[in-house]
Amino acid sequence: MILAPVVNIAEICAQKGIEHVVLSPGSRCAPITIAFARHGGFQVKTVSDERAAAFMALGMALTTGKPTVLVCTSGTAALNYAPAVAEAFFQRVPLLILSADRPPEWIDQLDGQTIRQQNVFGQHIKQSYTFPPDFSHPDATWYSERMVSEALNEAMNYPAGPVHINVPLREPFYPAPDEDLKYNKQVKVIAEEPQAYDLSVAQSLRLQEEILKYRKVLVLAGQDQQQEPLLKSLHTFTESTGAVVVGDIISNIHQLPQAIRHQDIIFGNTDQEQLAKLQPDLLISFGKSIISKSLKVYLRKYKPKAHWHVQPAGQVADTFQSLTKIVRCTPQNFFTALAGSTRADENFAAAWAAANETAGNYLQKYTQGAPYSELPVVARVLRQLPPKSNLHLANSMAVRYANIVGLQAAQQVQVYANRGTSGIDGSTSTAVGCALSCPGITTLLTGDLAFFYDRNGLWHNYLPPNLRIVLLNNHAGGIFRLIDGPRQQPELEPYFETRQELNAENTARDFGIRYTSVNSLEELEDALPAFFHPEAGAGILEVFTESNANASAFDAYRTEGRKLRFK
Amino acid sequence: MILAPVVNIAEICAQKGIEHVVLSPGSRCAPITIAFARHGGFQVKTVSDERAAAFMALGMALTTGKPTVLVCTSGTAALNYAPAVAEAFFQRVPLLILSADRPPEWIDQLDGQTIRQQNVFGQHIKQSYTFPPDFSHPDATWYSERMVSEALNEAMNYPAGPVHINVPLREPFYPAPDEDLKYNKQVKVIAEEPQAYDLSVAQSLRLQEEILKYRKVLVLAGQDQQQEPLLKSLHTFTESTGAVVVGDIISNIHQLPQAIRHQDIIFGNTDQEQLAKLQPDLLISFGKSIISKSLKVYLRKYKPKAHWHVQPAGQVADTFQSLTKIVRCTPQNFFTALAGSTRADENFAAAWAAANETAGNYLQKYTQGAPYSELPVVARVLRQLPPKSNLHLANSMAVRYANIVGLQAAQQVQVYANRGTSGIDGSTSTAVGCALSCPGITTLLTGDLAFFYDRNGLWHNYLPPNLRIVLLNNHAGGIFRLIDGPRQQPELEPYFETRQELNAENTARDFGIRYTSVNSLEELEDALPAFFHPEAGAGILEVFTESNANASAFDAYRTEGRKLRFK
Repeated sequence: MILAPVVNIAEICAQKGIEHVVLSPGSRCAPITIAFARHGGFQVKTVSDERAAAFMALGMALTTGKPTVLVCTSGTAALNYAPAVAEAFFQRVPLLILSADRPPEWIDQLDGQTIRQQNVFGQHIKQSYTFPPDFSHPDATWYSERMVSEALNEAMNYPAGPVHINVPLREPFYPAPDEDLKYNKQVKVIAEEPQAYDLSVAQSLRLQEEILKYRKVLVLAGQDQQQEPLLKSLHTFTESTGAVVVGDIISNIHQLPQAIRHQDIIFGNTDQEQLAKLQPDLLISFGKSIISKSLKVYLRKYKPKAHWHVQPAGQVADTFQSLTKIVRCTPQNFFTALAGSTRADENFAAAWAAANETAGNYLQKYTQGAPYSELPVVARVLRQLPPKSNLHLANSMAVRYANIVGLQAAQQVQVYANRGTSGIDGSTSTAVGCALSCPGITTLLTGDLAFFYDRNGLWHNYLPPNLRIVLLNNHAGGIFRLIDGPRQQPELEPYFETRQELNAENTARDFGIRYTSVNSLEELEDALPAFFHPEAGAGILEVFTESNANASAFDAYRTEGRKLRFK
Repeated sequence: MILAPVVNIAEICAQKGIEHVVLSPGSRCAPITIAFARHGGFQVKTVSDERAAAFMALGMALTTGKPTVLVCTSGTAALNYAPAVAEAFFQRVPLLILSADRPPEWIDQLDGQTIRQQNVFGQHIKQSYTFPPDFSHPDATWYSERMVSEALNEAMNYPAGPVHINVPLREPFYPAPDEDLKYNKQVKVIAEEPQAYDLSVAQSLRLQEEILKYRKVLVLAGQDQQQEPLLKSLHTFTESTGAVVVGDIISNIHQLPQAIRHQDIIFGNTDQEQLAKLQPDLLISFGKSIISKSLKVYLRKYKPKAHWHVQPAGQVADTFQSLTKIVRCTPQNFFTALAGSTRADENFAAAWAAANETAGNYLQKYTQGAPYSELPVVARVLRQLPPKSNLHLANSMAVRYANIVGLQAAQQVQVYANRGTSGIDGSTSTAVGCALSCPGITTLLTGDLAFFYDRNGLWHNYLPPNLRIVLLNNHAGGIFRLIDGPRQQPELEPYFETRQELNAENTARDFGIRYTSVNSLEELEDALPAFFHPEAGAGILEVFTESNANASAFDAYRTEGRKLRFK
């Protein structure tokens, strides 16, 4: 007999609108597994490697905006979730983790698959709960039901994030063969009407007055998903005020035609006079992390007089060491409230536009003429992405190259990347999770180390036909050859680059994925249309380059870029 | 310039006798990487997947008995160590983890690869330290040097385990091209003379008197490594007292000819009268975990009058719910002190010997005549193991089959298994770590789920030629078909067994490992001699079986076993 409160975890999740459940096999977790598998209201998948399972769940939560449920057995299973849980915590993605555990009296008694699971995610979880192990007192059922609602509400409250319920379970783990699970449709559910996070009239007026002091207003968008209403209010704000808006590829503001997108090249420039013209007096930031290191370095050096960060709730980072005001509302409400509130210095906007145009022209010229190497490869791949598709950028060089190249507004591509923690550990799994939960093509752009690190993201029975993997294989952690520090060290090859000999052909064979490899820009251009064809099925396009050739081509690109004259 | 105290971490480790260092690549950790790589006193390896790296380090610490040093960069890298760290904690294996971190002022500031690394291993670490981020005060150097000594001492103090030093580092991460690292040979090192953990004369006398009350003395050895002096004292104790000694395969007491080794079959028996004859009045246990569930269930039901557990220090588990006395000394000292102290009931020893002989004969008969399935496969593999080699048993069915089959004293095989947490997550990597740090053959016996889960254990440039992998591939988590609960559920195949289609041929091709597959007992017997040849190089022997056939053969084995008459 499976305890009714365990069965009803699934019922509450269904009533709260949860769609996706990712299980990893185990015996201790069987009651939870069966409760979700038999319910009928979920898309349930089982993935053996818990590290991959958790990143897949993260990918699903990214596209659906709802918590994905993760279920694992007792022992180190939950520890294998930890990298994805930390990523979800810092990227603010909702997850509900249900870990089966032994009852408290059997912890530390040398029984198999037992660790200390309470609060096992430490400081990288929004909230940790312990499911009641006994239901002899009637309040325990109320407590258990309340807990599931609270956990799901907390996962969604801004800032969203992962929550954990540790579930101690005693035998029997399996229902009798003729036993029916009874889902209580009348189960207690606590809904939560979320905070509107709007400014009061008085606050709006005060900010409208204050912003008048600044003529050089730079809006900086950090990582976030595409949000139509936000883009609209931001568009109205910048058009009505003359403010400049800049955002990395992961900010998903490339839909705004006026957005500056070549900041990485612009701030690679060394002409202090040119750079000084771009210094804002008011920086308004929102969203999460920034990729471009040259932008960060610039803003830390050319500090604005004031830096406002707009964030509804939660801890705020002072990324540029210039923060002066935190505004507690949604960015959308902020930009709506402040539309038309000031009129910026036209020379400032013009300087930015000129720099962006010069940089864009340089990039186009460079990628057209450059020798076969990763940056021109990425430029061609991004240009060919199917419209309205998803792009997942693996960490290390893939996300950096893509940020240099940028996307055009007309492509309407939604960009994802695990920039909460910037690990290479789960990019493939996250992309698979996106593809499984979202129609249309999801393209993963990845390097070889990230790809093979997370090869188990493909090890399950749910290969999504809409997945496309572009694998930049230079047989090493090529990033280390692109940075001055390590490439001057005798330890470069064995201890930083870490040469690795794998290519993806055997992987593709293992998982039944269409495989193509290319060795030149011409082969790449020939291969891309068929690769991205909507009916082509899951595919890996492996682009072989040489780490040395990438480094010298990228050097040439940067050297030239440093000398650009912004017209 | 790399800070001298960071360079001297390596020097202190060298002076404390550390041999093995496993690095994972990163930029933040470059100062630590270079300090170890350039020192010259270590065997340094670099492994990209931190999960695999940490389990490899565990394997090295198992064979050497010394802490392995692990070095990783900031961010989720350390979280990927967590499964191996928990295993090391519960299996009591020394590790020194050095994680690079940002300095404290940059935590939570949306800079890349930053998580909250202090105490990141939660309750699964013996001690966590934070390296000083600044050395402007002279005490900081003393503190940093003292810390490294303390950490290494703590890792080795009984019970051994993992310790963690989080190392905040500021740029520059790399020495100048012409910079020499200065290792201070006069660096402060604190040696520690370990506790002898012996009984006082008074304690010995008291225990000698107390043990006289018991005539049916059962000694139960939990998991531990082979220790010649312990085996000798245990031998003397049992010979002089008539006590019965029993131990699973992971207890490594199979060198004792008198050790009972068929407890798993004996306690599968259903004849209460036979079983009652085996009930001890004094149970003396030592070591760590027990595999045999039937033994655990038996001892919880047929409780001894007294249960003494011998363990030098640390938390003691009451695995059989019968613990009455904890004795704080080494098992070796205990058995030496109590040799000849009592004379046990001869009928008791005779009953055990008879049960063991009947069970052994049954096992031999069964495995000789059984249809092609995993248990007779494992019997043949274990019989053919090279003498004086290492055997690493992966979790789930591999370790259970091997425990049923057992080893003979003459084989002198040392057995390892990750039974601290009993996860399937790092068996391959741990076996690779054993093979890399110990001459002679290391054989990994693994199922397909464990093998593919941890495939990255082979993804590095250090494939050990002395590694042999016997892969029991039934394309599923076959264990679930062997247990009554799940195999009666409609969810068996998709959510418990988790069918998986991989075989290891492409993996072997990827990593350049010799590959053989077999489909019958005859093919297996033909293949084993060449496979185990000392000069054959690293190999995978993949044994394909059907999950259904395994289940029915194993059923027949258990059904017959329940009815055995102990002569």
